[in-house]
Amino acid sequence: MFGARCLLRALRSCSSAPCPRHKPSAKLSVRDALGAQNASGERVKVQGWIRSVRSQKEVLFLHVNDGSSLESLQVVADSSFDSRELAFGSSVEVQGQLVKSLSKRQNVELKAEKIEVVGNCDAKDSGFVHIHTPVITSNDCEGAGELFQVKPSSKIKVPEENFFNVPVFLTVSGQLHLEVMSGAFTQVFTFGPTFRAENSQSRRHLAEFYMVEAEISFLESLQDLMQVMEGLFKTTTMTVLSNCPEDVELCHKFIAPGQKDRLEHMLKNNFLIISYTEAMEILKQASQNFTFTPEWGADLHTEHEKYLVKHCGDIPVFVINYPLALKPFYMRDNEDSPQHTVAAVDLLVPGVGELFGGSLREERYHFLEQRLARSGLTEAYQWYLDLRRFGSVPHGGFGMGFERYLQCILGIDNIKDVIPFPRFTHSCLL
Amino acid sequence: MFGARCLLRALRSCSSAPCPRHKPSAKLSVRDALGAQNASGERVKVQGWIRSVRSQKEVLFLHVNDGSSLESLQVVADSSFDSRELAFGSSVEVQGQLVKSLSKRQNVELKAEKIEVVGNCDAKDSGFVHIHTPVITSNDCEGAGELFQVKPSSKIKVPEENFFNVPVFLTVSGQLHLEVMSGAFTQVFTFGPTFRAENSQSRRHLAEFYMVEAEISFLESLQDLMQVMEGLFKTTTMTVLSNCPEDVELCHKFIAPGQKDRLEHMLKNNFLIISYTEAMEILKQASQNFTFTPEWGADLHTEHEKYLVKHCGDIPVFVINYPLALKPFYMRDNEDSPQHTVAAVDLLVPGVGELFGGSLREERYHFLEQRLARSGLTEAYQWYLDLRRFGSVPHGGFGMGFERYLQCILGIDNIKDVIPFPRFTHSCLL
Repeated sequence: MFGARCLLRALRSCSSAPCPRHKPSAKLSVRDALGAQNASGERVKVQGWIRSVRSQKEVLFLHVNDGSSLESLQVVADSSFDSRELAFGSSVEVQGQLVKSLSKRQNVELKAEKIEVVGNCDAKDSGFVHIHTPVITSNDCEGAGELFQVKPSSKIKVPEENFFNVPVFLTVSGQLHLEVMSGAFTQVFTFGPTFRAENSQSRRHLAEFYMVEAEISFLESLQDLMQVMEGLFKTTTMTVLSNCPEDVELCHKFIAPGQKDRLEHMLKNNFLIISYTEAMEILKQASQNFTFTPEWGADLHTEHEKYLVKHCGDIPVFVINYPLALKPFYMRDNEDSPQHTVAAVDLLVPGVGELFGGSLREERYHFLEQRLARSGLTEAYQWYLDLRRFGSVPHGGFGMGFERYLQCILGIDNIKDVIPFPRFTHSCLL
Repeated sequence: MFGARCLLRALRSCSSAPCPRHKPSAKLSVRDALGAQNASGERVKVQGWIRSVRSQKEVLFLHVNDGSSLESLQVVADSSFDSRELAFGSSVEVQGQLVKSLSKRQNVELKAEKIEVVGNCDAKDSGFVHIHTPVITSNDCEGAGELFQVKPSSKIKVPEENFFNVPVFLTVSGQLHLEVMSGAFTQVFTFGPTFRAENSQSRRHLAEFYMVEAEISFLESLQDLMQVMEGLFKTTTMTVLSNCPEDVELCHKFIAPGQKDRLEHMLKNNFLIISYTEAMEILKQASQNFTFTPEWGADLHTEHEKYLVKHCGDIPVFVINYPLALKPFYMRDNEDSPQHTVAAVDLLVPGVGELFGGSLREERYHFLEQRLARSGLTEAYQWYLDLRRFGSVPHGGFGMGFERYLQCILGIDNIKDVIPFPRFTHSCLL
C-alpha cells in the first residue's frame, strides 16, 4: 500500500498535465517501483546499479538496485539492448513501463524502452595485483606473540634446527610481504590462510582463518584508506547478494531472522568515523557496567566494540588514531601530544565487533629507525627498514577477517559455522 | 612466402570462376591467414576460438586462434557486432576481407563482414566449486612421511600437547578434504599452499608450494580424468598467453629462447598415453645409462621422466596404471595380475618431468577396508572409510604443482625463480 501511494505521488508530482503519450517518465526509487501493487504500464524512470545480467536469445533480464531496497528491480529488455557495457556494477538509467510480472518471483517488472549506461564498470580496472604471500615465515609481523612454530617432523633426517637454519612460524599476517610487493606493483592484495595460536574458546576466533589484506602505495590519508575499506565491504556484499541470493536467504530465513534488514541498514548508510579518544569518552559515559573499565591507553574489548556499534545505531563505525603504545612499530606516528597516537583504523560492525584493522605505515626512515631501536627489533627488521631507505612512499593497508565477514553478512553467531574444517583449541578434525 | 602460397592455393581451390563480387569466401587457417604477405582485401573465412576481446566506442577487436599457430589473428569489426556472446573462449566463424594492418603489431588483420558464434563459452558453467581445504591437519594424506609438524611457540601458555589434543601437521595435499566435499558438490577444486619437508636442493622442489587440486564424483575412467587434466593445462595456458602476452614474451625472449615453439608444439598436439609397464620397456631399451636402473616395481626418477618425454617427441605424456605397491591406499585397484596395478596417472611434461599426479579413488568399501587394514591405518582413517559406507560413488581427482606449471610454460629452469618468497632447505628469507 505504501509503495502504491508513493508511486502515485511520484507520478503526480512529475506532471499534472493530462498528456499520457508524451508525459515525461516519473523517476522512482527501486523500493517504490517494487512496492507498486497495481502496476499497469505507467511510464517511469529508474536509476541504479546492475546487480545481475541474464541474456537470452530474444530477451535480456537485468536486476537493478539503487540501495533503497535489498531487493532489486527486474528490468526486461529486448535483446537488441544487449551490450558489453550492461555488466555487473555499471550504473544505468532505465526508462520504460512498469508492468505486472508474469513470474511469481516478483510483483512488478520494468519493460525497458530506453537504457542508458551512466558509468561503466570494468571489474578488471581495480588495479590490485594478487600476491601469494608465504605461509611459513621467519618474521612474526606484529610481535604479538601468539605464534605456531613449524619444525620438520621427527622422521625427517635433517636436524630440525638445520631445515631452514632459522626458527620459522606460521604467518600471522602477509602485511610485511605485501609492503615489499607494493613497492613494485603500487596496489596489491592477498587472500590466504593466517594463523594465531590463541587459547580462545570465543565465538569469533579460529586458529586458522582467512584474511583479505591490501596494501596501497602513494596513499596519504586514513580517509582514502577508509574509502577503500568501505567500498570493499559494500561491493563484496552486493556481489554476494547478487550471485548467491538463495544461500544468503537460507541463512537469513532459518538462522538469523531480521538479518536482511540489519544488512540493508549497513549497506545504505555511510559508515561512521570516531576517534579512539571519542570512543573512550562514549564508553566512560555509558550506563552499562563493563568487565574491563574503559580508560585512555587501554585496548578495546569485545564488550566495548559491541557497545560502540550499538551506540552508533548499528551502523559500521571506523575507530581511528589509537595510542602509539598499543600498536606495532610500523604504524604511522601522528606526532600529537600529550596523547600520543598513530594513524591506525579498525572497523567495528554489528554482531561481530572488529572486522577490519589497518593503518598508514610509517614511511619516514628516522621515525621507523627509532621505533625499531626502542623495541630492540633493529637487527631483525633491517630488510624492512631498507624499504624506507630506497624509494620510500607514503602507503597504507588493512586486513579483513574473511570468516568474520561471513558471520557479519549472514548473521551466523559462531565463527566455526562459516568454515568447512574449523581449527581451534582442542580441535583439529580430519 | 609459405603463407602467401597457402593463401593463393586456398583461394584457387575455393573457386576458379572469375566472379570477384559473389565469390564464396576461402576458408583459411589462422596460420595461413597470418602468413599472407600481400593481403589486399581477399574475402576469406576463419574459424577458431576467441582469445581476447577489446571493445572500443566505434570498433571491436577480437583475437582469434584455431591452434594452427601460437599467434592469433586480429579481427576488426564495427562495434555493432559487439555482443555478450563474443567472449573469451567462444568459438566463432568470421567472414571478411584480409587486409594489411596499419599497426606494427601484425602484418595482416581480418576486417569482419560477418561473425557467427558457433559455440558459446560461459566460463561460470564449469561447475567446479572452490573449496578452501585446511593448512593445519591431523592426517598425512599420503603416508609419505615428509611432514612439517606444527606446535604453539614456547611463549604460549597452553601445553603444546593440549593445543589441538592431537599431533598436527602442515597439509601435503587437500585431496582427502576435497573427497569429503565432492560428496556434497560433485565437482570441487582447491588452490592453496602445500608443504613437503623434503631435504632437496633440486631445481623442482620447494618446502612451500601451490597446488591446484580437483576431485570429481561420478567419474569412472582414467580417460575422462585425463581429458580434464589436458583441458586444464591447455585452457589455462591459452588464457595466460592471451591475458599476459608481454610477461610471457619477456621470459621467452630473454630467459628461454625457443620456448615459444616448444609450447606451441605442446598445445597443438594431443597428449600421449602410455602405461607404466610400457614406460619401463622403453627405459630398458634406452641406449642411455641411468643412475637408477629401470625395472618393473621401481619408482620413476627425474632422469626417467625426462627420457620418456624426449622419447615421446617432447609432447606431454600421461603414464598410467602404476604398481599397487608403489602407491597410497586410496588409489583404485585394477584387479589385474600377475602385475598388480592401480588406476593412477602422472602427466610428464618437457623440462619439468612430473607436473600432475592423479588417480581413480577406491570407492569400493571392502577393497578400501582391506588396504587400510594391511597398512595398519584403519583406526586413523575410519572417517574416510565411512565416506564409502554412505553413498559412495566412483570418483577421481588430481593435483597440479602450480610453480612447476609456471616453469613449464615460461621455460624457467629453477623453481625458486617463479615464486616471490621461495622456502627451501636452509632458506626462509623474510
